[in-house]
Amino acid sequence: MQTKARSRNFIYTDWILIETQFDPEQLHSKETVFTIGNGYLGTKGSFEEGYPHALPATFIHGVYDDVPVVYTELANCPDWLPLVVIVNGDRFRLDQGEILRYDRQLDLRYGLLSRYLRWRSPSGNTIDITFERFASFADQHVLAQRCHLTPVDFDGLIEVQGSINGYPENQGFNHWEGLDQGKTDQGIWLQRRTRHSRIELGMGATMKISGTEASLQVSTAPGYPTLSMTYLAKSQQTVTVEKIVTVFTSRETETPVSAATEKLAHLPDYATLLKANEQAWDEIWQQSDILIEGDSTAAFAVRYNLFQLLIAGSRHDDKVSIPAKTLSGFGYRGHIFWDTEIFMLPFFLFTQPAIARNLLSYRWHTLPGARRKAAHYGYKGAMFAWESADTGDEVTPRWALGNDFYGEDVRIWCRDREIHINADIPYAAWNYWQATGDDEWMQQRGAEIILDAAIFWGSRVEFNPERQRYEIRGVIGVDEYHEFVHNNAFTNRMAQWHLEKAIAVYDWLVQKFPERATELEQKLKLTPQERFSCGDAMRTHWQDIIAKILFLHDPLTELIEQFEGFFQLEDINLADYQGRDRSMQAILGIEKTNKYQVIKQPDILMLLYLMRESADFPYNEKALQTNWDYYAPRTDISYGSSLGPAVHAILASDLGKSTEAYEVFMQALMVDLEDNRGNTSDGIHGATAGGVWQAVIFGFGGIQLTENGPVANSHLPDGWTRLKFKLHWQGLWHDFDLHQGLGMGHGALGMGHGALGMGHGNKERREQGDKGKTEITNAQSPMPNAQSPMPNIKGFIFDLDGVLTDTAELHYQGWQKLADEEGIPFNRQANEALRGVSRRASLMHIIGDRPYSEAQIEEMMERKNRYYVELIQNMTSKDLLPGAIALLDELRQAGIKIGIGSASKNARTVIERLGIADKVDAIADGYSVQQPKPAPDLFLYAAKQLGLEPAQSVVVEDAAAGVEAALVGGMWAVGLGPTERVGAAHVVLPSLEGVKWADLRTKLSNIAREKACSF
Amino acid sequence: MQTKARSRNFIYTDWILIETQFDPEQLHSKETVFTIGNGYLGTKGSFEEGYPHALPATFIHGVYDDVPVVYTELANCPDWLPLVVIVNGDRFRLDQGEILRYDRQLDLRYGLLSRYLRWRSPSGNTIDITFERFASFADQHVLAQRCHLTPVDFDGLIEVQGSINGYPENQGFNHWEGLDQGKTDQGIWLQRRTRHSRIELGMGATMKISGTEASLQVSTAPGYPTLSMTYLAKSQQTVTVEKIVTVFTSRETETPVSAATEKLAHLPDYATLLKANEQAWDEIWQQSDILIEGDSTAAFAVRYNLFQLLIAGSRHDDKVSIPAKTLSGFGYRGHIFWDTEIFMLPFFLFTQPAIARNLLSYRWHTLPGARRKAAHYGYKGAMFAWESADTGDEVTPRWALGNDFYGEDVRIWCRDREIHINADIPYAAWNYWQATGDDEWMQQRGAEIILDAAIFWGSRVEFNPERQRYEIRGVIGVDEYHEFVHNNAFTNRMAQWHLEKAIAVYDWLVQKFPERATELEQKLKLTPQERFSCGDAMRTHWQDIIAKILFLHDPLTELIEQFEGFFQLEDINLADYQGRDRSMQAILGIEKTNKYQVIKQPDILMLLYLMRESADFPYNEKALQTNWDYYAPRTDISYGSSLGPAVHAILASDLGKSTEAYEVFMQALMVDLEDNRGNTSDGIHGATAGGVWQAVIFGFGGIQLTENGPVANSHLPDGWTRLKFKLHWQGLWHDFDLHQGLGMGHGALGMGHGALGMGHGNKERREQGDKGKTEITNAQSPMPNAQSPMPNIKGFIFDLDGVLTDTAELHYQGWQKLADEEGIPFNRQANEALRGVSRRASLMHIIGDRPYSEAQIEEMMERKNRYYVELIQNMTSKDLLPGAIALLDELRQAGIKIGIGSASKNARTVIERLGIADKVDAIADGYSVQQPKPAPDLFLYAAKQLGLEPAQSVVVEDAAAGVEAALVGGMWAVGLGPTERVGAAHVVLPSLEGVKWADLRTKLSNIAREKACSF
Repeated sequence: MQTKARSRNFIYTDWILIETQFDPEQLHSKETVFTIGNGYLGTKGSFEEGYPHALPATFIHGVYDDVPVVYTELANCPDWLPLVVIVNGDRFRLDQGEILRYDRQLDLRYGLLSRYLRWRSPSGNTIDITFERFASFADQHVLAQRCHLTPVDFDGLIEVQGSINGYPENQGFNHWEGLDQGKTDQGIWLQRRTRHSRIELGMGATMKISGTEASLQVSTAPGYPTLSMTYLAKSQQTVTVEKIVTVFTSRETETPVSAATEKLAHLPDYATLLKANEQAWDEIWQQSDILIEGDSTAAFAVRYNLFQLLIAGSRHDDKVSIPAKTLSGFGYRGHIFWDTEIFMLPFFLFTQPAIARNLLSYRWHTLPGARRKAAHYGYKGAMFAWESADTGDEVTPRWALGNDFYGEDVRIWCRDREIHINADIPYAAWNYWQATGDDEWMQQRGAEIILDAAIFWGSRVEFNPERQRYEIRGVIGVDEYHEFVHNNAFTNRMAQWHLEKAIAVYDWLVQKFPERATELEQKLKLTPQERFSCGDAMRTHWQDIIAKILFLHDPLTELIEQFEGFFQLEDINLADYQGRDRSMQAILGIEKTNKYQVIKQPDILMLLYLMRESADFPYNEKALQTNWDYYAPRTDISYGSSLGPAVHAILASDLGKSTEAYEVFMQALMVDLEDNRGNTSDGIHGATAGGVWQAVIFGFGGIQLTENGPVANSHLPDGWTRLKFKLHWQGLWHDFDLHQGLGMGHGALGMGHGALGMGHGNKERREQGDKGKTEITNAQSPMPNAQSPMPNIKGFIFDLDGVLTDTAELHYQGWQKLADEEGIPFNRQANEALRGVSRRASLMHIIGDRPYSEAQIEEMMERKNRYYVELIQNMTSKDLLPGAIALLDELRQAGIKIGIGSASKNARTVIERLGIADKVDAIADGYSVQQPKPAPDLFLYAAKQLGLEPAQSVVVEDAAAGVEAALVGGMWAVGLGPTERVGAAHVVLPSLEGVKWADLRTKLSNIAREKACSF
Repeated sequence: MQTKARSRNFIYTDWILIETQFDPEQLHSKETVFTIGNGYLGTKGSFEEGYPHALPATFIHGVYDDVPVVYTELANCPDWLPLVVIVNGDRFRLDQGEILRYDRQLDLRYGLLSRYLRWRSPSGNTIDITFERFASFADQHVLAQRCHLTPVDFDGLIEVQGSINGYPENQGFNHWEGLDQGKTDQGIWLQRRTRHSRIELGMGATMKISGTEASLQVSTAPGYPTLSMTYLAKSQQTVTVEKIVTVFTSRETETPVSAATEKLAHLPDYATLLKANEQAWDEIWQQSDILIEGDSTAAFAVRYNLFQLLIAGSRHDDKVSIPAKTLSGFGYRGHIFWDTEIFMLPFFLFTQPAIARNLLSYRWHTLPGARRKAAHYGYKGAMFAWESADTGDEVTPRWALGNDFYGEDVRIWCRDREIHINADIPYAAWNYWQATGDDEWMQQRGAEIILDAAIFWGSRVEFNPERQRYEIRGVIGVDEYHEFVHNNAFTNRMAQWHLEKAIAVYDWLVQKFPERATELEQKLKLTPQERFSCGDAMRTHWQDIIAKILFLHDPLTELIEQFEGFFQLEDINLADYQGRDRSMQAILGIEKTNKYQVIKQPDILMLLYLMRESADFPYNEKALQTNWDYYAPRTDISYGSSLGPAVHAILASDLGKSTEAYEVFMQALMVDLEDNRGNTSDGIHGATAGGVWQAVIFGFGGIQLTENGPVANSHLPDGWTRLKFKLHWQGLWHDFDLHQGLGMGHGALGMGHGALGMGHGNKERREQGDKGKTEITNAQSPMPNAQSPMPNIKGFIFDLDGVLTDTAELHYQGWQKLADEEGIPFNRQANEALRGVSRRASLMHIIGDRPYSEAQIEEMMERKNRYYVELIQNMTSKDLLPGAIALLDELRQAGIKIGIGSASKNARTVIERLGIADKVDAIADGYSVQQPKPAPDLFLYAAKQLGLEPAQSVVVEDAAAGVEAALVGGMWAVGLGPTERVGAAHVVLPSLEGVKWADLRTKLSNIAREKACSF
């Protein structure tokens, strides 16, 4: 399917961006848009033949060099693109002659950039020229170009010159000093070194020609080694030129030139390299793709944004991270901001966790710089740089210096004051750990990040004895329109959250990795004298801060004040400025903006967003509504920060503002394809790309991360008929294939019940149910007996909790007891808000903003679980869910075997208490296997106990992880509950009530038949 | 004669600098030392073949482009040097293979740089290579290179590649964007444009080979067009390659590329171009050379410094000036400081006045920028930039930003506070006018500079009602170690001086060019309502400031306080820091240095130096001695500013401290040849070069600018046997050829008499007389009857005043009468200090620091002259000087005719009063001719009246200008007085007392015989 975006001369297909016309006015933004890369380097989409004022650039991760004012920047590397074609003496160039055909394509599937041109030279010779290039994903040191040349109407001399340009420039600055260059049997090489950081680079290049005879000439203009070939071209005969380039730096090898020339000597031809690249990309997309149907612009543009993240994420180097403008532009000089951890990281965390680990490890490597920064400012621990580069030292420029002889000096205070990043990075580290269970990383690296950054907060807060509160004064919050504010809610709450997690991590470390704990205690001077304990000064201090940090929140209305005095600032009506084309700060000036209630980007709303998945304080539905109503209209969403729109899209979607959500989502989605902020020439908006992924997955896909893994609670935009993606969680893949369908009835199964019991979103889920229906089909997983249309089912394996019985009541009783003991008001009605909510989130909801320490919270969670286990003992057959006993009996009568597959270690107790032990042939419980769901082990164990093949078994599950486990195990899956949760199952049912074996059998047979036809 | 400077591998001949060995450690300083240029561009001495880390640079006057922090800089232009030689596959390069011979020579006489090399390639082929280059002084757009190649021990393939490198860099930054490039019949061309200032540049290049057959190949690597030739070389056979380059910018022509290629098409060969260049240089040196004998290092090094000024001074463009580092380095980014006007300008003023006029006109063109600066700071008029570039706007960086992540921000206050430049430029303009009499320039440009800059002072001073004084607070004086000082003596006195001159210039303008006066009144808003007059507000204000500006001067001791509170600062003994290798500021830090009495460079002493020639307040002998004793030991002369040593050399010389004077002179002289400040790599110290000229001319040469023109009062350093130079003054050339001889007895004639009566220097002149003797021979002027050994003398032409009579007593009486009328103490003893001092200087001495306005001073000068003319009427024969009447009688008896040659319009009156009218055959007086001495007109007129040929005539003179007039006229010259004054004469005598015609005749005959032998 194709959509034409006329203003940009763009056509979007599923995977390919097609530019139909060359517009010199858009030269620089298109150079960004057509960037390619492979996680090691990025190369902008400049033309092989050059163009006046073109800004070709290749950035390699970690290759920084000194520069005035902004300290350091990613050095533009020698340009591997130059490929000059001289047609009977006329150099091919788009600014001369006549362009008869122009077609540039970026194929996202393989990172392949190509151009198809027909050009008439000033002398009147017409030629077809095709260029192709890619940076290999199969071998990151390999870059390849191909050029087809076909004279249309002449015979004549054609010369092709392929060069390495050793004079790349960063806005005019060339970071490289020439060391050497030369030629080999294979071609040419160039050796350069950055001026200050002394990073050496070696590049090699070869060129081959086919379809004619031509000898290779080598010219050695200093810094511009060139391979050239001249041949006698014949009309209508195509000649192909291949140029292969290799590149290494001293960051990977001691001898970059040798590495480059040796690799070059052993490389296969272009076609073989291309094939390997395609295979590598296939694997990448296998994990990271999002399929959208019904909205072809979004379908392409979402992939386009993911592509930008994929080519920027380092796969083999954990000492680098993704700059704000990825590897695609000079903007922000390749510096790394919170953008990476908060906006981009989730995409990697859930689809490329190894890259996520690299990104976070980068921060661990920069701890020495963060410690230097803290020491410089007179604080303790690690104070992460607002802008970070190779060392982790602060590289935010101090001054915004214009070139006006008499201009004002504008001091940039972010380096000193925008300290929320010190909690943002630990937030990301914690979430990585939660999502992956990567204990190894946490103990080796994550813990040190979280603890040393926490030490900083301990020295940064100030205790105000009058208020008896800790304060954090003189900061810049997320909203950078207001400088030197006190007690910014985002900063204070994130610091508090961070300290809570720091204590939890420390306790975990002491328990699980005592040696590492001791090591860190000594290194970070956590406990100079004695082991960190309840009586320890640091812990006490942290707990005291957690308990007493100031947070400007009205518990009655849930309205939060962004910082002290925000509500006293002059109000503003942004509608009065409609039609503007720049930021409010640009309109009002820095000083005046400071005095108005106008904010650059979500600040309070950003805090609510970050606490949304865990439903941590201050997140709740009312708080979201109240604060949205207050802050959204005061946010400069169009021209403030590009970080804003994606977050607004998710929250608007939560609030049922579908139109607004989609509108603001499109702002984010098209930021670079449509250059809607006018600064795409500076590079891709990396954080926006990450925000787009979050908006699709967490917003429209409605993914919630429950104790059982990710669960979908989708509310797809109008027109989106399908949304399909994968998420990686705790070592396993979860496939989601969400449909907004044709009212086949299945929608009702998954919708409208509210059975998921999420703490929020019920309202709009219902709305969604009213106006559209979601159909669930199976996930893209192995199909049992795909060759056989009729399933041969011989056994059923039931999950226990949520399938045969429901422990919600027992959970309620546990919570009630806990609440009573703590003197917190709680009742059955309040409990309704806890359905499907994790244990932690439930507890946070109950305690509200009461100042409990993290340790206390942990203790309460344990206590409630103890009560729950005690309550199990009182279960009876009355606790069987409706329909359960009838179905069990019918199955047994039909000769179907019955197994139980429950992760619970109390499963046997529960079965006995429920009185069904005699109906069960086999039990797989918490003692049976090592790997939990969604690993298939438990069900495979049960099937084996039943003496059945997987394909002969039906698993009945109410959790996504269980459904996945069944599918992965090659079994039939019946999901109970909403499609968002169990949509991956072959059949989705609301519950077992009224379910008949005969009906189920028919459904499974039909599915099997449909699948067989489609094979 | 040759001197070897071992540490730098240098040999100095009279004109040629020879480097005998290549030391990579000195790569960058030598690139500066071997700079060539032609007043349009300068090209550093980088190698044709390149070298690792080489920094080749070509700077073209006025080609500025934007750069962060420092606003703008001279853009390094495309490099015309690349000439690569490939010997049997091995690229010639000094970092590989073996250097068997190395000899680099810079011939100052013709600006020719050459290298003679024998090199053995890594493959073992030995070759002799010679490179030569020059930037034509005959045609500033032409650059030429030649290369001789002679295989020593092999036959084989040699390839020569000549390129233009379009990737030049300013410390890594390339200011040029590529527009186009191509080839012509003659060779290649390149078109580039500066990124921001949009100055277009066109360069063309051709290459020819002789001594073999080879075809020219053109390769067109983007931005690096290259001409190459490959030939079969034979052992011992020399092949010559010539590369000619042309360059134009859009500052000179609208079509720089066409201009370059067209010129290239019509150029003759290298040899012809070289010849034209040599002729042009001959003319330059004819005017500007200084010949020193007896000190070969100084002889070469002085020429080296003049060479640097000559290649930097723009001859055809008056919108540019000479940057602090000339056109030879990146230091100070090509910005222009007071260095040009105060240090470099005098050299041009007295040897290349057209260039001086260009340099000052540059400031006139920058008045709009200076007005913007004044307006920005809230002042009126023109406030000249401390650092100036193309527009005259202030381009001193605001911040010294290091690349330390946590370094302190150092604010540079010179842009705001170092305002003495606003008087320095008018000082230079005034002196240009005084020296040249260029009224046209003064009315068109100089007056506007002087007046508008004066308006600034009117708005900058503050009246302190308590003190009843005007103050200038919060400045940086010349000494930059102290910031924000109040009432810096240099600044206050220079401002006062400037306002005095502004009134004088204005009055002159009103009188001589009333239309221009009206125009400026309107433009500068001098008199919004009525014509500038005595009642006018502006004039009254200026006069009030002149009268009441604060000047911290003790009239008793003559000690001046550098600024308010300087004497209260902590004292320092620089001897305690002996052996240091950096500045005191570097040792103590900025803050501490501010608190000590340590100064970066002469400040009070600089003021005394600037007032020295005119003997204006506060200059006098005692003031010099007192302030030298105080300030010199507190001056960081070795590592403070490089502006210091030359000034100290002159003053030390005045004070008879010959050893110290020479020592500090050598510091200045060798600053770049010996790199004694370690920063020659940043570029030539232009101000030091100018200071060297001033030290030689005004210091050792002792040139005083009297009413009659420049007069020498030399005190040559030990070992200097001869000092010869020319000065241009009021449209005429004055030759000086000063000798320090072998005790032939003549020395006594010129020495020890103190008859010159200079206000200073008598003491050390006597010392000089004690330890060495000065012999005077004729100037380099036409020699009368050079072919005939025996002079045939038939007439004597006597000057009147100082020869036959002495008007000193009458002058004294005139001054005494004036002093009495003004109530100023004055007596005969005080009058002794006025001998030989100009009318103005005499008056300034008498009035001391009494606050007279310039107008009052002018009036007093007129009054005194009136009294003098009246006194002449009372002369009698008693006023004839001793020996006069006897010689006149003897001559008449010998048949020698007697003429009078006096510029006085009262000559006839005086002759009659003296009673010698009957002894005189002819009178040439102030009515006889138009051109005054040193034009020969007056004496030629007298000789004609006497009926004699010039060579038959002897002129008797007591003034340098008179002696010169005689010599220029081809007459014999007898000088009366010290050698410093009349040393150019054939015979020098103290007076006419005891002089016999017979003795004189013998002397003249002997001289004629000696001269004949030497011909």
